[in-house]
Amino acid sequence: MTKKLNGTLVSNILYEELKQYLSTKKTLPQIVDISIDDDLASNLYVKRKEKTITQKTNIKFSHMNLKNITKEHLLEKIDTLNKDKEVTGIMIQLPLPSYLQKSEREILDKIDSKKDIDGLTTNQIGNLTVNNDSLISCTAQGIITLLKAYDISLEGKTVAIINRNNRIGLPLANLLLQNNATPIITHSKTKDLKTITKTCDMVIVALNKQEFIKKDYIKEAAIVIDVGVHKNKEGKTVGDIDFDEVSQITSYITPPTGSIGPMTICMLAYNATKAIYGKEIDNLLEQAIKKAKQAIRDL
Amino acid sequence: MTKKLNGTLVSNILYEELKQYLSTKKTLPQIVDISIDDDLASNLYVKRKEKTITQKTNIKFSHMNLKNITKEHLLEKIDTLNKDKEVTGIMIQLPLPSYLQKSEREILDKIDSKKDIDGLTTNQIGNLTVNNDSLISCTAQGIITLLKAYDISLEGKTVAIINRNNRIGLPLANLLLQNNATPIITHSKTKDLKTITKTCDMVIVALNKQEFIKKDYIKEAAIVIDVGVHKNKEGKTVGDIDFDEVSQITSYITPPTGSIGPMTICMLAYNATKAIYGKEIDNLLEQAIKKAKQAIRDL
Repeated sequence: MTKKLNGTLVSNILYEELKQYLSTKKTLPQIVDISIDDDLASNLYVKRKEKTITQKTNIKFSHMNLKNITKEHLLEKIDTLNKDKEVTGIMIQLPLPSYLQKSEREILDKIDSKKDIDGLTTNQIGNLTVNNDSLISCTAQGIITLLKAYDISLEGKTVAIINRNNRIGLPLANLLLQNNATPIITHSKTKDLKTITKTCDMVIVALNKQEFIKKDYIKEAAIVIDVGVHKNKEGKTVGDIDFDEVSQITSYITPPTGSIGPMTICMLAYNATKAIYGKEIDNLLEQAIKKAKQAIRDL
Repeated sequence: MTKKLNGTLVSNILYEELKQYLSTKKTLPQIVDISIDDDLASNLYVKRKEKTITQKTNIKFSHMNLKNITKEHLLEKIDTLNKDKEVTGIMIQLPLPSYLQKSEREILDKIDSKKDIDGLTTNQIGNLTVNNDSLISCTAQGIITLLKAYDISLEGKTVAIINRNNRIGLPLANLLLQNNATPIITHSKTKDLKTITKTCDMVIVALNKQEFIKKDYIKEAAIVIDVGVHKNKEGKTVGDIDFDEVSQITSYITPPTGSIGPMTICMLAYNATKAIYGKEIDNLLEQAIKKAKQAIRDL
C-alpha cells in the first residue's frame, strides 16, 4: 500500500511554529505580492496564498495589481518597495505578460535579494548553489521539507527531476545534492524519458502536462512527487501524473491536492520570516519537521 | 577506433584568436594569481599557466605568493587588487591551506566578480545558473568548447558527471542543460555508480582517484572526458580513467595529457579577455570553434 504525503498536515505544524515564534517579535513580516496581468487563475492563487498565510500566521500580506504597467514604472515600483522598511518580502507573479517577458531577469533582479522570498534573484540562486545561507524557492524547499517530515532519507537515492527551471528543477538539484542524493535533470529535449525515470528511486514531476506520467514510467516502490495542477474535463483537480495508475506501485506519492500546494505556500511564510530573522529560524524548521514526524507516526 | 580529443590543437586556435583580437586593443588583460601555500605541484601548475598564457597571448600574468598570510590581510590584499585598475583578473589557488578553509567562500566572494576569471564567486555562479552572461569555470567551459570543436552534439545526450563541486560538476550541469543534454550529477554518496555511468552517452570524470574508471563503467561507443591528473608509479601521467582499457570501447576520449589541461588554461586567457571586453568576445569563441572544426576535418 502506498502512503500519501500529506502536505496540509506538515504545513499546519510549520505554520504553528511560525505563529508562535512571531508572537514574541515586534517586527512582523509584510509580504507584497505583485501581479501584472489579471489572469483569473493567477489572481485566485494569490488570493489563496493571502487567505492561508494571514489566517494561519501573523504575517501581513498585500496584493498589488499593476496591470499594463511599463517596465520602467515597474522597476521604479520595485525600488520603492525595496526602500520601504515596512515591506520585508517582495514577490512577482510569473509568468510575466508577454510584453515584459524578455526583461524577466532584469525585473526579478531589481528585487532586493534580502526581500526575495521567492528565491529567484541571481544572488539567492547563487547562494543556494554555493551552499551559503539563502532564501530558497518555495516549491523546491517545500518538497524537501515534506520528504524529511516523512523521514524519507535522500542519501544515495537516484532522483529524476522532470523540470529544469530556476523555480523547481535547478534549486531541487542543489537541495538533493546537499542531501547526498543523485539528481538527474530531465526536460523536453531528454531522449527516452521513460527509460530514465523507470530506473529511479524517486521521480519529481513538474512538466505541466495533464496526467502525462503513467505507471510504466515508474519503478516498483519508487517515491513520486507531483507538482502539476490541472482541472480535468470533469472539473476535478489532477496532476502531471495519472494518480490512480501510478499510486498502484509507489511506496510514497503526493495526491493531486493537499500536498505540494500547501507546502509551497507555507514555505513562503517561512521565507518571509527568514528574510527578517535570518539563519536562526532554521532551527524552527527543524523543530517543525521533528513535530511532523511524531504526528505522522501517531496517525 | 576511438578518436582522441586534442585540446592542444583546439586551445592553440583560440589563443591565436585572442592574440589577434588583443593586438588591436590598448588595454590588455592582467591576471594576478594568488597562492597561499608553497605546495610544489600547485606552484608548478601556476608556472605552467603563466608560461603558456604569456607565450601564446599578449596577456600579462603575475604570481603572488602570500604564504602564511592571515585571513584579514588576505581580504585586504584582494581589496587592493579589486581597486587596482591595472589588474583585470584575480584568481586564488585552491585548495586553500587548512587554516583558511572554513573561510573559503568569504575569501572567494571578496574578489570583485567582474575580475573573477575563475568563475567561482557567488555572483558569477548565480549568473551562469540564470543564464546571464557570465565568467564561467575554466574547466567546465573548456570541456564544452572541446566537445563543440569536435562537432559532438550534446542535445538529448545523457551525461554522467562524476563530481559535484562549484568548479566542475555544478557549472558543467548548467552548461549541459543550456545545450539540451540531460545531466546526472554523481558523487561519493551515489549508490551503484557503475549502473548509472554504464547507461550514459557521455561520462565526465573528475573524482580524483587514479585510473578508477574501468571499461565496465562505460557503454559501448560512449564519449569519455577525464579531468583527473596523477603521476603513476612509473612517473607517467595518468587520469581518473584507465585509458588503455576504456579507450577500447569509446567513440571519443580524452588522452591523459594534451586534452582538458590545455583547454582549462586557455579558457583562463579567454575569461581574462572577457572580463574586460564582455559579451562581444563570445563571437571570438564561436569563430575559434569554427576554425577548430575545419582544422579537425583537415587532419
